[in-house]
Amino acid sequence: MTVTAPKGFRAAGVVAGLKSSGAADVALVVNDGPATTAAGVFTANRVQAAPVRWSRQVLRTGTLRTVVLNSGGANACTGPGGFQDTHATAEHVAATLTGTGTGLDVGAGEVAVCSTGLIGERLPMDKLLAGVDAAVAALADDAGPAAAEAIMTTDTRPKTVVIDRTGWRVGGMAKGAGMLSPAMATMLCVLTTDALTDAATCDAALREACRTTFDRIDSDGCLSTNDTVLLLASGASGVTPSAAELTAAVTAACADLARQLIADAEGASKEIAIEVVGAASETDAVQVGRAVARNNLVKTALFGNDPNWGRILAAVGTTAAAFDPDQLDVAINDVWICRGGAAHAPRDQVDLTGRLVRIRVDLHAGTDTATIWTNDLSHAYVHENSAYST
Amino acid sequence: MTVTAPKGFRAAGVVAGLKSSGAADVALVVNDGPATTAAGVFTANRVQAAPVRWSRQVLRTGTLRTVVLNSGGANACTGPGGFQDTHATAEHVAATLTGTGTGLDVGAGEVAVCSTGLIGERLPMDKLLAGVDAAVAALADDAGPAAAEAIMTTDTRPKTVVIDRTGWRVGGMAKGAGMLSPAMATMLCVLTTDALTDAATCDAALREACRTTFDRIDSDGCLSTNDTVLLLASGASGVTPSAAELTAAVTAACADLARQLIADAEGASKEIAIEVVGAASETDAVQVGRAVARNNLVKTALFGNDPNWGRILAAVGTTAAAFDPDQLDVAINDVWICRGGAAHAPRDQVDLTGRLVRIRVDLHAGTDTATIWTNDLSHAYVHENSAYST
Repeated sequence: MTVTAPKGFRAAGVVAGLKSSGAADVALVVNDGPATTAAGVFTANRVQAAPVRWSRQVLRTGTLRTVVLNSGGANACTGPGGFQDTHATAEHVAATLTGTGTGLDVGAGEVAVCSTGLIGERLPMDKLLAGVDAAVAALADDAGPAAAEAIMTTDTRPKTVVIDRTGWRVGGMAKGAGMLSPAMATMLCVLTTDALTDAATCDAALREACRTTFDRIDSDGCLSTNDTVLLLASGASGVTPSAAELTAAVTAACADLARQLIADAEGASKEIAIEVVGAASETDAVQVGRAVARNNLVKTALFGNDPNWGRILAAVGTTAAAFDPDQLDVAINDVWICRGGAAHAPRDQVDLTGRLVRIRVDLHAGTDTATIWTNDLSHAYVHENSAYST
Repeated sequence: MTVTAPKGFRAAGVVAGLKSSGAADVALVVNDGPATTAAGVFTANRVQAAPVRWSRQVLRTGTLRTVVLNSGGANACTGPGGFQDTHATAEHVAATLTGTGTGLDVGAGEVAVCSTGLIGERLPMDKLLAGVDAAVAALADDAGPAAAEAIMTTDTRPKTVVIDRTGWRVGGMAKGAGMLSPAMATMLCVLTTDALTDAATCDAALREACRTTFDRIDSDGCLSTNDTVLLLASGASGVTPSAAELTAAVTAACADLARQLIADAEGASKEIAIEVVGAASETDAVQVGRAVARNNLVKTALFGNDPNWGRILAAVGTTAAAFDPDQLDVAINDVWICRGGAAHAPRDQVDLTGRLVRIRVDLHAGTDTATIWTNDLSHAYVHENSAYST
């Protein structure tokens, strides 16, 4: 049921003709309230798609009535015209929803817009706006799965989650694989909850959740122009969880979706957890994990089932984290193949034939830890990303 | 003639049996003086191979009599035993050279050591020391080419250079492709000159030369544990160039060798120059160029002959350089495919069929500029780097 699992939400997913494949490509999520509390987290890329610029502005009020999402075009690097397209889409959604006679009175400033697809091309607005009309007509309180389908690009399956708490829920859908498909250029995620909460609590919960989940998956080191994570709270359950309870539930939802993104990353044959332990700070642990995750030689070695710990050490050595190079330990799938910065267990003890790989790096510099998830660098990745736009 | 082109140098390249292929794998460069001025620049990686730790220490005196280099093993991440191996090698070179009866009296502290090959394995010292004996016996003032051959790993051809000035010269040899072959883990370069100079001038010239040449090639973003660039000055020409003249000649030699490394990078089908112009500072220009050079999606797109300027903008957007996203211009092979952060010339005007690709990014934020050289990300890269150590 994804985004429609919590009370107070309707959704839709329809075919607008933006995708040449003829698959669904416009999704709508409507919060029927009573509350319309919301928060958003956006890409850190300074080159931001028009829908990101728009939605960031809209979220300043801490409220949101609806989100319209399209696949089949990122509307990024499209100039002032592209921004006008986003604005027109929000206006059209607001007017159409208001005109349905369901008592809704929506302004464009309550409509977030998310787009995903190729960078640099304008959207076919006639098709998109007709798609919005169809989506409004299709809105239903059990159409979360249809919405999750409509936001897919190179995803091979929809990513959905429901977290059940006593009397309230968090539901969610996501698409993309971090930047593993960045010509598709987007990781989009919409979360809903029927918890009763305020904008500040909502914002803090979402930021903390993203920090330890979406911000710790790193398929290929590339940062998108369109990344958007939204949380909409209807209050329809009547239950007010504590800030900690809300944060925990939202974090659980984001962690589940983040793992689904890594599991379906374009061209990947491995899901790799890089667990950094013994760090002097969490920042150090994240920095080291990310350096290993982004190292093409580590990634190609793992694609080749090669437990090449030397490349891992070389990646760790590029960071400013606290450690003594002669004290570094590395385990691959629980075999301590490197101790004290030198060879330890024989490399043939490491079994890399499975899809899941667990790398543990012990910095011996403190007690902090962090885990970064990534993928291998495969022929299929090169193929998909060299052949995409042409 | 490479390192033996300037007066006062002898060299050798011999087969020691470190490489399973049976190719030459030990090289020696000897400065017969009268001066033994020298400088070195080493990897910024904090995980440093034993020979890097040793040679850095040796170079503190600003003098060097000889350099011994081996391929077939990087001697990195080999613990205290690996450092002892390097020390023993330097001692053996010093003793053997002193014992040749040519009047040389060499201490281990005048011997730099460079190693290249797989990380994490000890060197077979019996073979290496026997190779040193053979190299000392083979020393000749025309054996620069043999030395350049002996330091090759996955290089398909030796990299050599001679810069002629009035009455003096700079000669050089190099191996590796930045970190494009970092299981081989090394970019090694030895430069020689018969100019008369002092240690401080030598050091400043080498640092400035590396800053704008070797530091601006970036095959795959991976930083080696073994990178070493050495400059040895014999003074045998009797000519004392100005600091500026020496810097210019050393820079010309390094630039030539750097381009040879990019041209022979493992698995690459493109040589890509990323020229950043209109930057507020040189640092900004380098940062932007490097971000584009390290972006796997830009690199795979170029492998696929796809002028995907959107990925270039997304890469630029990850930096902290001064620019307005709506003012970015991008040209690929002289076609301005993006102006003002949006599409401009049609993508089919860009011809990417050649091996050389020129990307120009105009930040419109100042007058500084820098060029970073990189390669594409190809199936051959994935193949070579996933299959290497197993």
